Amino acid sequence: MKKSLLALALLGSFAGVAQAQSAVQIYGTVDAGFIKRTDQSMAIGKRANNTLGFKGTEDLGNGLKALFQLEIRYEPDTGTIEQGAGGIQRPLFQGQSRVGLQGGFGMVRIGRGLTAFQETSTQFEPFHGVPSPAGFQTDLTVAGYTSDPLGLVGNSTNRFSNALFYNSPDIGGFQINTTVATKEGNQSAKIIGRGTDTAPQYAAGANASANPYSVSATYKNGPVAMMLAAERNAVESELWSIAGSVMATPALKLMASYTAQDQEHTRLVNPETDSWVVGANYTMGAGKVLIGYGRKTPDGVAKTKQFSIGYEYSLSKRTYLYFDASNKKGPTVPSSIKHYAVGVNHAF
Amino acid sequence: MKKSLLALALLGSFAGVAQAQSAVQIYGTVDAGFIKRTDQSMAIGKRANNTLGFKGTEDLGNGLKALFQLEIRYEPDTGTIEQGAGGIQRPLFQGQSRVGLQGGFGMVRIGRGLTAFQETSTQFEPFHGVPSPAGFQTDLTVAGYTSDPLGLVGNSTNRFSNALFYNSPDIGGFQINTTVATKEGNQSAKIIGRGTDTAPQYAAGANASANPYSVSATYKNGPVAMMLAAERNAVESELWSIAGSVMATPALKLMASYTAQDQEHTRLVNPETDSWVVGANYTMGAGKVLIGYGRKTPDGVAKTKQFSIGYEYSLSKRTYLYFDASNKKGPTVPSSIKHYAVGVNHAF
Amino acid sequence: MKKSLLALALLGSFAGVAQAQSAVQIYGTVDAGFIKRTDQSMAIGKRANNTLGFKGTEDLGNGLKALFQLEIRYEPDTGTIEQGAGGIQRPLFQGQSRVGLQGGFGMVRIGRGLTAFQETSTQFEPFHGVPSPAGFQTDLTVAGYTSDPLGLVGNSTNRFSNALFYNSPDIGGFQINTTVATKEGNQSAKIIGRGTDTAPQYAAGANASANPYSVSATYKNGPVAMMLAAERNAVESELWSIAGSVMATPALKLMASYTAQDQEHTRLVNPETDSWVVGANYTMGAGKVLIGYGRKTPDGVAKTKQFSIGYEYSLSKRTYLYFDASNKKGPTVPSSIKHYAVGVNHAF
Repeated sequence: MKKSLLALALLGSFAGVAQAQSAVQIYGTVDAGFIKRTDQSMAIGKRANNTLGFKGTEDLGNGLKALFQLEIRYEPDTGTIEQGAGGIQRPLFQGQSRVGLQGGFGMVRIGRGLTAFQETSTQFEPFHGVPSPAGFQTDLTVAGYTSDPLGLVGNSTNRFSNALFYNSPDIGGFQINTTVATKEGNQSAKIIGRGTDTAPQYAAGANASANPYSVSATYKNGPVAMMLAAERNAVESELWSIAGSVMATPALKLMASYTAQDQEHTRLVNPETDSWVVGANYTMGAGKVLIGYGRKTPDGVAKTKQFSIGYEYSLSKRTYLYFDASNKKGPTVPSSIKHYAVGVNHAF
Repeated sequence: MKKSLLALALLGSFAGVAQAQSAVQIYGTVDAGFIKRTDQSMAIGKRANNTLGFKGTEDLGNGLKALFQLEIRYEPDTGTIEQGAGGIQRPLFQGQSRVGLQGGFGMVRIGRGLTAFQETSTQFEPFHGVPSPAGFQTDLTVAGYTSDPLGLVGNSTNRFSNALFYNSPDIGGFQINTTVATKEGNQSAKIIGRGTDTAPQYAAGANASANPYSVSATYKNGPVAMMLAAERNAVESELWSIAGSVMATPALKLMASYTAQDQEHTRLVNPETDSWVVGANYTMGAGKVLIGYGRKTPDGVAKTKQFSIGYEYSLSKRTYLYFDASNKKGPTVPSSIKHYAVGVNHAF
Repeated sequence: MKKSLLALALLGSFAGVAQAQSAVQIYGTVDAGFIKRTDQSMAIGKRANNTLGFKGTEDLGNGLKALFQLEIRYEPDTGTIEQGAGGIQRPLFQGQSRVGLQGGFGMVRIGRGLTAFQETSTQFEPFHGVPSPAGFQTDLTVAGYTSDPLGLVGNSTNRFSNALFYNSPDIGGFQINTTVATKEGNQSAKIIGRGTDTAPQYAAGANASANPYSVSATYKNGPVAMMLAAERNAVESELWSIAGSVMATPALKLMASYTAQDQEHTRLVNPETDSWVVGANYTMGAGKVLIGYGRKTPDGVAKTKQFSIGYEYSLSKRTYLYFDASNKKGPTVPSSIKHYAVGVNHAF
């Protein structure tokens, strides 16, 4: 009996340790593999984003919580912070950096993160939003749209900096997500747009001409899920999107999306682009097949067509191997690019 | 009884886990809010520093401890490492990077961190040292002084790199803190000083002309606290400061500081600047009012005057909301700058 | 009895916490001290690498494990990410960034890290591989060789990016380690080599002309250890090395290595360099003496000779003080460089 009491006493001190540590949770992903592209030599790279994150919540009582999340992004093949176009390093916390409150009213956060549309649309993309060329998320799913045209050179194209994020609670299957950003500029390069090289429409480091916003509404009912979304970026390009998915059988998820972008504010000719993507995920034991096909159709420019097939084999809940093959045809050089990848994804 | 023993056995293994983990403690702050300045559009930014830190201590026996602390600084509105003037990124561990020993003799550390003066003076500043324009710490409290004139462009102005830090134990309310740096240069831009553009007093990347040092002495006695401090930087600008505070009632803290800077080593004219700041903090339940007024008076240049009022409302011990209003008048364009901020500060 | 059950119930929840947290282990080193070099003013710097790492393993069953390791490198004297030549920042995870699987077959990892030769050779170096000028690892142990000539300017010279790492299991004392990299370029500066300034042998950002590889074989038998290694880098410089050590008494470790580099692929004249290092470690209670002497002999260029003596005094298993003195003579200015260091190394 004495020993039991001692055990409890020790437990008390452990409780303290555990509570203090639960304030910060470390998590992340390492994804690396071999990549072969038609016109490039064999490379080592990633399929999904690589993250090292720190997050936590604090119970404020009365159902209110404070929360934060800071997410490093990196390249495991070279050890650098995540790189954008031209090998330029992105922000340390490229994944997200947000602080906020959560309660019966939903969740409100301040900082930088995926826009409401960009975050929601991954649920209707056959490669669950991975940025690999085998996936559709970064190009066809968004009709070639960028959420952050006035960001630093090399920055990602699917986030708002300086933004307020609101997610409503789930009410009978409905949820609304909104993101609104300030007009703050962020050391961007100039955008000529409807101006000239010497008098660009947006000078280097310009402020937004209107507050960027993004909104998505989702509805879930049993096997069916739907999304309706709209977004406007800092140079007033506009996007709207509709998407849906259905669990046709417990193992088979079918999905489709349509997205239209209007760049009339900065383009005299061919301002419109629309795109659609259809796909399926089929689960067989530890394996899952991912299939997708999509088209992007800009005004007066050659179409882009992409077909991709992937296979994920789970070694555990946290670790899987992947095998991708993809063919993308469009106004690129070469006009047809085949992409193959095999690698491992480990979550921690 | 068997179960109790099992519990103890399990506790043994937990003890191992807990001990190993206690070696590194993760902590930090996320502070983000809306900022409106007279001459700028609405922005999202910070009021206090944003930190993500790693620290730990090791008991060496005989009252001796080894300790380390590494503190990342970042900007939550854009996800980048903390930025200085011109958007230039500061060191990853901008907060501090130090290792040292602690014992009956006090604490000695090597690395980079706030100077003795800069760290101590925050206790006599009405906005507890936050770098927001509503606070006085970064300008009026220090009489416009910089601790690191030969640091990298964009570096913070209140730290020594390459330094030895010593804090004495508390002896009858007295404590001495000293910081001494080597003369190592750090890729700084040139400083013309008393030289010319082609023959600057300090060339780019120059070494210090004397060892920078900083010393502060504090005395605490019941409700009263006092500080006397002096510092010399790498280009031999000198500073001294006196400050005091008193808890007039358990809820009311009054404080005042006077600081003088002498830049004669690098300036032919107007080498002296002095400044004073008075302030009060008044606690009402979960709320706290912060009030401050200060003046900076450089030789032969227009005075700077600042009045600030803030309100902090605690949602918990770790989370508070803040509301600031400030007016600063001086030789700036525009000559009067009003600053308003509302936001949230969450510690983890 | 009820309390015992409660204890067990609580233990259950702790088990969950412990398991979740064991996924990520934080570790690292802080090493800082005073350095005096013949021709430079007193400085604060490091002797060993400074690391902040995140690692974890996941049991996949059947003896298979998934594992990852991400290791930040930094400079404690200035708080920056580790810097290479010219103060250029290295990758965030300069230490390593790897993910892989471990099982009966050994360990296979993908990413960036020390090559098989560079990692193994530290075991036969009298200063256990520290990059300090007092140590031999970065110059004499490797005969002046660089593993990554096509890396970013300022990058470390002992790692492969974009590589596959394999370590065999220990079979009767034998182990084989191999590293193979893709030919991917990494924004390197041009290498004139056997070309001309306008037509360099390797253009800026060039791909490797052959797949870089590194292999080391080790044998351990009681007090004796041996290594045989070979490596080829991205510009086809070749290296081979043989090394051995013996525990002459339980307190005395003797060691020696010989290494030869052939740069014929990029050099018309004097393509060969060879070097040898001999050393001893002698342990006396909490103290350890490190002694080494080595020579590097390039074709037709003046020899480099180095003698070093160090002393490490352990305050605990995780913390030690060090004292180094070293003299290096060679084709440098000045031709003889004396190096003294005293500092502290703390592991966490």
